[in-house]
Amino acid sequence: MVAMERLMVCLCMCVCVVSSFNIPAEMNRTIQNLLQHYKIPVKERFNGRPVFSMEALEGKVQDAEKRVFLGGVLETYEKLINKMMGQLPTPAPQAVRTDQRPTITSIINGPLTTGNQAKAAEGRLRDELNYILKLVKTLRKHQYREQDKVLQGLRHLQHIQMDDLIIQSKALWELPQLYQEASLLTGSSRRQRRRRRAQRVKTHLRG
Amino acid sequence: MVAMERLMVCLCMCVCVVSSFNIPAEMNRTIQNLLQHYKIPVKERFNGRPVFSMEALEGKVQDAEKRVFLGGVLETYEKLINKMMGQLPTPAPQAVRTDQRPTITSIINGPLTTGNQAKAAEGRLRDELNYILKLVKTLRKHQYREQDKVLQGLRHLQHIQMDDLIIQSKALWELPQLYQEASLLTGSSRRQRRRRRAQRVKTHLRG
Repeated sequence: MVAMERLMVCLCMCVCVVSSFNIPAEMNRTIQNLLQHYKIPVKERFNGRPVFSMEALEGKVQDAEKRVFLGGVLETYEKLINKMMGQLPTPAPQAVRTDQRPTITSIINGPLTTGNQAKAAEGRLRDELNYILKLVKTLRKHQYREQDKVLQGLRHLQHIQMDDLIIQSKALWELPQLYQEASLLTGSSRRQRRRRRAQRVKTHLRG
Repeated sequence: MVAMERLMVCLCMCVCVVSSFNIPAEMNRTIQNLLQHYKIPVKERFNGRPVFSMEALEGKVQDAEKRVFLGGVLETYEKLINKMMGQLPTPAPQAVRTDQRPTITSIINGPLTTGNQAKAAEGRLRDELNYILKLVKTLRKHQYREQDKVLQGLRHLQHIQMDDLIIQSKALWELPQLYQEASLLTGSSRRQRRRRRAQRVKTHLRG
């Protein structure tokens, strides 16, 4: 019964993935193909622990803030797909045996049919991963360049040597400017919202 | 000549820190006091490598995106000041010698004047660090709560086990939704900007 329920959820969600999203049809097809290779049990897929939690996109988070997170997600996909491509076996150079005469079958199918088939499947897999990687890279390059700067800044924060006296002193010295920036930024965004709201009311009254 | 230039830059910047920023005067005073303890050579302070690079706040980065970075900066300050407080010597319990009779000086100044002075200085240092920590914490708690969610999401991305087949498969399966979200979000912000611009033109024409 539980397995049946899981299967239904899976089917429903697969239909969703294929039909309703406004993404390239070729992308959906390629992902479906790839999932045939990267096959896992249904109970693993729907164990309630997604790889990318959507919590960062919920609540009062503004679109621009969500974009920073999604920039990080796209960056992670780039790394992940590169890793997956790196795990595919590299095509080894084919050894030619001089004592073996070519037959008509080997001329048509190549010397080792199953070996060639496996190689062709690997090639397809590589092409499909490459296609997905290109889509992710293009979106990131054209729409998420500014977010990259923020992500780089955040990454840099993790490497600050907190034990170092020079760092401690310089950080104390830099604090007033950053504290002011952080205080003003929330103030300015509140002011902007208030101004926009007033503008809307004004336009509404005039209209 | 170079040393003189550095000194001038230092003096100018110190004046800036103390006078022009719109931050609590008590905060500025406390930082100046702390810098007397966390003293470093001028050439180290102005070596052109700030602890917190402002690059993430430059260019076309939107205010909401800047806030994510500044949320990370405030979080880093919290960790750093906690680390600095942890490095202060813990006040050791004072050993009382029974063979030593109290003198009038020891009654007034305490049994070990220099020891007491050092302890008082450490206490002041701890109070000052604590005051700065509280300011940072308050700003973060009241104005940077949503940014924390984004930062937590970004941190989570770094722990994704990219070698794991289950993770790879689930990530592929989650990609269409995230790709769509990432595509729509840039589109929606562009639409918002266009709408706001049109609104401004309309109001201007009416006015």
